[in-house]
Amino acid sequence: MAVGIEKPPVGLSRVAISQTHGENSPYFAGWKAYDENPYDEIKNPSGVIQMGLAENQVSFDLIEEYLKQHPETSTGGDHNSNFRENALFQDYHGLPSFRKALASFMGQIRVGRAKFDPDRVVLTAGATAANELLTFILADPGDALLIPTPYYPGFDRDLRWRTGVKIVPIHCNSSNNFQVTRQALEEAYNSAKAMNVRVRGVLITNPSNPLGATVQRQVLEDILDFVTKKNIHLVSDEIYSGSTFSSSEFVSVAEILEARNYREAERVHIVYSLSKDLGLPGFRVGTIYSYNDKVMTTARRMSSFSLVSSQTQQLLATMLSDKKFTENYIRTNRERLRKRYDMIIEGLKKAGIECLKGNAGLFCWMNLGPFLDKPTRESELVLWSSIVHEVKLNISPGCSCHCSEPGWFRVCFANMSEQTLEVALKRIHDFIKKQR
Amino acid sequence: MAVGIEKPPVGLSRVAISQTHGENSPYFAGWKAYDENPYDEIKNPSGVIQMGLAENQVSFDLIEEYLKQHPETSTGGDHNSNFRENALFQDYHGLPSFRKALASFMGQIRVGRAKFDPDRVVLTAGATAANELLTFILADPGDALLIPTPYYPGFDRDLRWRTGVKIVPIHCNSSNNFQVTRQALEEAYNSAKAMNVRVRGVLITNPSNPLGATVQRQVLEDILDFVTKKNIHLVSDEIYSGSTFSSSEFVSVAEILEARNYREAERVHIVYSLSKDLGLPGFRVGTIYSYNDKVMTTARRMSSFSLVSSQTQQLLATMLSDKKFTENYIRTNRERLRKRYDMIIEGLKKAGIECLKGNAGLFCWMNLGPFLDKPTRESELVLWSSIVHEVKLNISPGCSCHCSEPGWFRVCFANMSEQTLEVALKRIHDFIKKQR
Repeated sequence: MAVGIEKPPVGLSRVAISQTHGENSPYFAGWKAYDENPYDEIKNPSGVIQMGLAENQVSFDLIEEYLKQHPETSTGGDHNSNFRENALFQDYHGLPSFRKALASFMGQIRVGRAKFDPDRVVLTAGATAANELLTFILADPGDALLIPTPYYPGFDRDLRWRTGVKIVPIHCNSSNNFQVTRQALEEAYNSAKAMNVRVRGVLITNPSNPLGATVQRQVLEDILDFVTKKNIHLVSDEIYSGSTFSSSEFVSVAEILEARNYREAERVHIVYSLSKDLGLPGFRVGTIYSYNDKVMTTARRMSSFSLVSSQTQQLLATMLSDKKFTENYIRTNRERLRKRYDMIIEGLKKAGIECLKGNAGLFCWMNLGPFLDKPTRESELVLWSSIVHEVKLNISPGCSCHCSEPGWFRVCFANMSEQTLEVALKRIHDFIKKQR
Repeated sequence: MAVGIEKPPVGLSRVAISQTHGENSPYFAGWKAYDENPYDEIKNPSGVIQMGLAENQVSFDLIEEYLKQHPETSTGGDHNSNFRENALFQDYHGLPSFRKALASFMGQIRVGRAKFDPDRVVLTAGATAANELLTFILADPGDALLIPTPYYPGFDRDLRWRTGVKIVPIHCNSSNNFQVTRQALEEAYNSAKAMNVRVRGVLITNPSNPLGATVQRQVLEDILDFVTKKNIHLVSDEIYSGSTFSSSEFVSVAEILEARNYREAERVHIVYSLSKDLGLPGFRVGTIYSYNDKVMTTARRMSSFSLVSSQTQQLLATMLSDKKFTENYIRTNRERLRKRYDMIIEGLKKAGIECLKGNAGLFCWMNLGPFLDKPTRESELVLWSSIVHEVKLNISPGCSCHCSEPGWFRVCFANMSEQTLEVALKRIHDFIKKQR
């Protein structure tokens, strides 16, 4: 056999080779366990129950009912000419009717306490794209965004992978229900400076994923004062804003800005999406609402890489323009999520488990600290592995959310039937009993 | 009034501030002229006719007829449960039924001379996203892709803006109908090396935009040999592959690879989209078909930033699975495009204008070199300005496509009615008459 010089394989970029896509996190590993052995009440009753997916299935019947009553919504009107016009529509401004309906829906969720101008709505294919796009606009490679922990594991991919931007954690803890403090903000900022990293902004999720709780008004004021003082940006990801259990418990940064007469508003950018509140993640509809003209213009140009299907825009424009539908949907969805939340909290309490007091979202933040062998990340992952592989519940460990206190877990409750949730609660109950 | 130190505005990234979004190109400037004064047969007969937009409207009636005959396609089946499942579907692999239908459609366009495996189909929100995504995967900031001129003006944005990658032109000229030569490839490569820039690949469009002509088999062989010798990538953007006027005139790089038993295939990546061949740019459906497993896996992960609406996937899965429809569509669309092409070529000839001999696409490549004051870019832009503002036709000047020979223009013919095309031809005729 001839011995020759082996030609190296054709090279790929650093981005392609890097691990910042984050798919090796336990967050995604748990999904794989579910995928390989998914629970089914009849066909696979001993399978893994998916509690790691923040999906809202509790209000789907309302959308289905609407579409049944309004079949023309799906077909794009009676006239074929509508279909033609629509199929050709690729203007990155988006359909005016849809932007108007979306801006109005965002106002409705905030019960009119904040207004949104349709002309400032920039559409993107989901919040994933919106967050990445904003990061491209606000920060250079090597710069950092400060993010309160625990945070959504996907941010490690969305904000860092292709942009080369870093995330510096703002450490929060259970002593004040994981709310951001002025001191924690300063510490994060200083730790970035110590690493010679330029901080370009703070990114919060409000209501918080994974906490399932809204950010308090005073905390928002503090954060806004902080970014003003440092002359940096604030991104407020409010994709769960319609999923607070009561309309009065959520304060949007938009309201604070309105109260401040939009002083310093040019550093504030809101991200929203229809994936969570309407339960339509497959439709890929996200938006950036920026108070900064230059950011808005640039985001719109950049949205060419991530446009929303005009067919989908048209369906949603019609549905969200129906105020009777949206009012009923928003109210009913809140009530149902609260009922689910009460159900899981009660069930966990009976098993002897406490959760952070929540008021929003599709998940609760569960404290299994008392059940760890040691208060370490390793012990948390040992417990997590038992829960996934023995109890057969896919939940997300706090460490995947960069939580600095071991023992916390995110548990989703809105992506399954009540019956399945009861099975899950029984499994936890039995597991904890065995632990004691 | 107190004099104080003015606080600087909050900073944005270099990407946000840079001009590489390319919207200041005459290519886009012409669009604005059209937007401000659009032609309408009745309402604005002296307005600007849009001939700068590569949109396919000649076969829309076939799609409309199909949807009329199959109304269930739009509503997602008879059962609401389908809608629910579909609305929740956000797996970045895409709907299996749609990937299968798309792979089969791509094979049909190539009359079975190349096969596509549905498992290698990566979906993106349009070819814009597909091309950027591949660039992120294949090249680092500062690296270059070699692209034959003239090329699609949007590449300056798509391949460079957020990636930081450079484009180095492979200069082609009219002496051999703008086909790529081995010498031109070497010269481009060497000129990159002289600038100390690492070349990571060659990107071609086949059929070519703006030439409206397919790449010859021997040229493809040469390019494939070249990228193999240099150990770099080849991206073949084949978004007009279904828009060749005859099925026998197009050779896909996929066919060459098949003939070579997929030797060196891991450096080849095909981009496709339904925006041109089916005339559905608003639906945002693009795809990357890579023969490299690592590129495919990475592209799929990266497609999270640019997913296709599941509603749209479902509609297209149904439509493209209907072989009777697709066969008729592909054949009829080719015939109609050829008819349009013949019409414009004939009309221009009568006015004394020659075009490059074309066989594909939604445009022709028109030579106004003989009508330039001087053979310079400046003269080309002077003539272009007259055509846009006096003749009131928005066509794209060759310089916006980085053509190295002044006097060439891209003229689109498939985004309007035959009547409008006749008006446009009459205007050109009168203009040229006046020039002589």
